[in-house]
Amino acid sequence: MSDKVVIRDGVLREFVERVLRGAGLAPEAAAVTADCLVFANLRGVDSHGVQLLTFYIDHFLGGNMQVRGQGRVLSESGCCLVYDGENSVGQVVSAICADHAARLAETYGVGVVSVRRSNHFGAAAYWAQRISSRGLIGIALCNASPSVPPWQGKQGRVGTNPICMSVPGENARPWLLDMATTTVAMGKMFKARLAGESTIPAGWAMDKEGVPTTDLASALGGGLLMPLGGYKGSGLGMLVEILCGVLSGGAMSTEVGGIYLLSRPMGTCHFFLALDVARFMPLNEFRARMERLVATVKSAHPAAGFDEVLVAGDPEWRLEEERRRDGIPLDAGVWDKLQATAARLGIR
Amino acid sequence: MSDKVVIRDGVLREFVERVLRGAGLAPEAAAVTADCLVFANLRGVDSHGVQLLTFYIDHFLGGNMQVRGQGRVLSESGCCLVYDGENSVGQVVSAICADHAARLAETYGVGVVSVRRSNHFGAAAYWAQRISSRGLIGIALCNASPSVPPWQGKQGRVGTNPICMSVPGENARPWLLDMATTTVAMGKMFKARLAGESTIPAGWAMDKEGVPTTDLASALGGGLLMPLGGYKGSGLGMLVEILCGVLSGGAMSTEVGGIYLLSRPMGTCHFFLALDVARFMPLNEFRARMERLVATVKSAHPAAGFDEVLVAGDPEWRLEEERRRDGIPLDAGVWDKLQATAARLGIR
Repeated sequence: MSDKVVIRDGVLREFVERVLRGAGLAPEAAAVTADCLVFANLRGVDSHGVQLLTFYIDHFLGGNMQVRGQGRVLSESGCCLVYDGENSVGQVVSAICADHAARLAETYGVGVVSVRRSNHFGAAAYWAQRISSRGLIGIALCNASPSVPPWQGKQGRVGTNPICMSVPGENARPWLLDMATTTVAMGKMFKARLAGESTIPAGWAMDKEGVPTTDLASALGGGLLMPLGGYKGSGLGMLVEILCGVLSGGAMSTEVGGIYLLSRPMGTCHFFLALDVARFMPLNEFRARMERLVATVKSAHPAAGFDEVLVAGDPEWRLEEERRRDGIPLDAGVWDKLQATAARLGIR
Repeated sequence: MSDKVVIRDGVLREFVERVLRGAGLAPEAAAVTADCLVFANLRGVDSHGVQLLTFYIDHFLGGNMQVRGQGRVLSESGCCLVYDGENSVGQVVSAICADHAARLAETYGVGVVSVRRSNHFGAAAYWAQRISSRGLIGIALCNASPSVPPWQGKQGRVGTNPICMSVPGENARPWLLDMATTTVAMGKMFKARLAGESTIPAGWAMDKEGVPTTDLASALGGGLLMPLGGYKGSGLGMLVEILCGVLSGGAMSTEVGGIYLLSRPMGTCHFFLALDVARFMPLNEFRARMERLVATVKSAHPAAGFDEVLVAGDPEWRLEEERRRDGIPLDAGVWDKLQATAARLGIR
């Protein structure tokens, strides 16, 4: 285990906001971006948290991300809207577009917003939950740099392309699924290496010939993630690519850049869908039915080796409660890098 | 391998139609149901083909399925419609509801139809493709009898809950994903037993204590399928359960019956979504972009042991072409049962 620095979420949010404002973002843009990043850390999804800030700043300084941009509506027709992010900050674009989706759903029952030329938007959960906090079902998808080979292939063609849905629940705790369509994220392999391990579980990765492997060195040499459960995950990744890249008219497959690729704009595409539950039944009835479903699912006897059954979102709420109370543990290395980034921008 | 009987698809469709009319279905109801079942056989998805007819007839005779029913619209608000299948034939209900979804999408850009108290609707692909044949993106979901334990559980709480999307493509061949949210279908284990095998691949099933197993006998003793890739598949299955069971106000989780359970109506719930591509870009441009995405994905070098990269729908189109030309090979046992069913209804 590396050293940890523990920081209150409010302090961390304030710090990130200041750095973003220092990089030239408008106050509201800095606020939503900082909130989105710290949200991920609070929920334990550190890969999508403040460690990304350094890379965002690199993209700002490289001219790939327009710090003052916010994109524009290209068309609105019925409950469908197409948006050009114009290479603005992904969180700025996503806040506008998730709100359009919610507005359209409140008008028509469903709203769909298709976004091209955006950027990394942090955790998809943040956007789906922004929609579900209005009593709507929220779906957020995005494409990503092509690190995943199609089934039977050995060259990356789609991204980790997450599927995320948030459903209004009891006590402001939505049922919330946010999953990459790969078996695991690349970060898990880096972690395994840091932990000194030499093997990984079957199904995580393949070597450079596209042969599934449990040897960590071969997996890292291949540099490719495996689609969740094989051909099914490959299909799900492509489903996301179609709804994001194809439908928006933006970058798709190998055209998509990435957060670690500084030579060009990311060109990320998003898909936001909001669905107004009240068109189907009163929202309270829906919430009660959700509660009943969750209770039924949790009534299953735990499998050998487990104490309880969890549903999507449970581990994250628990951690969020803990981290709001006790602070967010950050790797010391991440914290050092954040401070160096701040210093680079002349921020104390 | 068991003996096969080869039958032309037209002949098989005609036979199934006659049996269904003999059971009391109206001619159009019999036609769409027969077409849906034979469609699955043509595409090689025999589990969802004419072998189901015998079970459908059992449900008719048991009074669980209303042979002359067709359900009714409970509400329509904006682009959202709620439908009560009134225990009518799943295909009859689905034809009406898929068409409502398409109509709403043509009016508003998106259409969503939520269906309760329906029945087995055959292959989800048939319905998504019915929508995509109109130049729309079609999504079809349904819940099913609770054969899948939640992650960390050992009692069934959700069904195989398929996710299906069909996208208008070139040459009337849509990109078409139709996948259960389990690693495999139960049928694969029965097939392995028939083939005399004693082990199954990791990730298929668990024993009765909920422990993952590769021993076929233990897996069959457990009688439980594993969610695709573990907790992610568990989340996807529940996503489908929410959009079908919870949103429709119908049966959910353990309330859902099943095709093999003759003591009560199935109560299956469906979710149909249609999305009008033309609200985002001209349909021809979308088709060209889809073609480009498919070509890019297929340009990945094949992994060791494979000759080519396939995308969702490819294996099925190929088989369909072959079976339209050469006929459909049916297990002799299935054919015998179908004839016995016909005889039971007094059909020559």
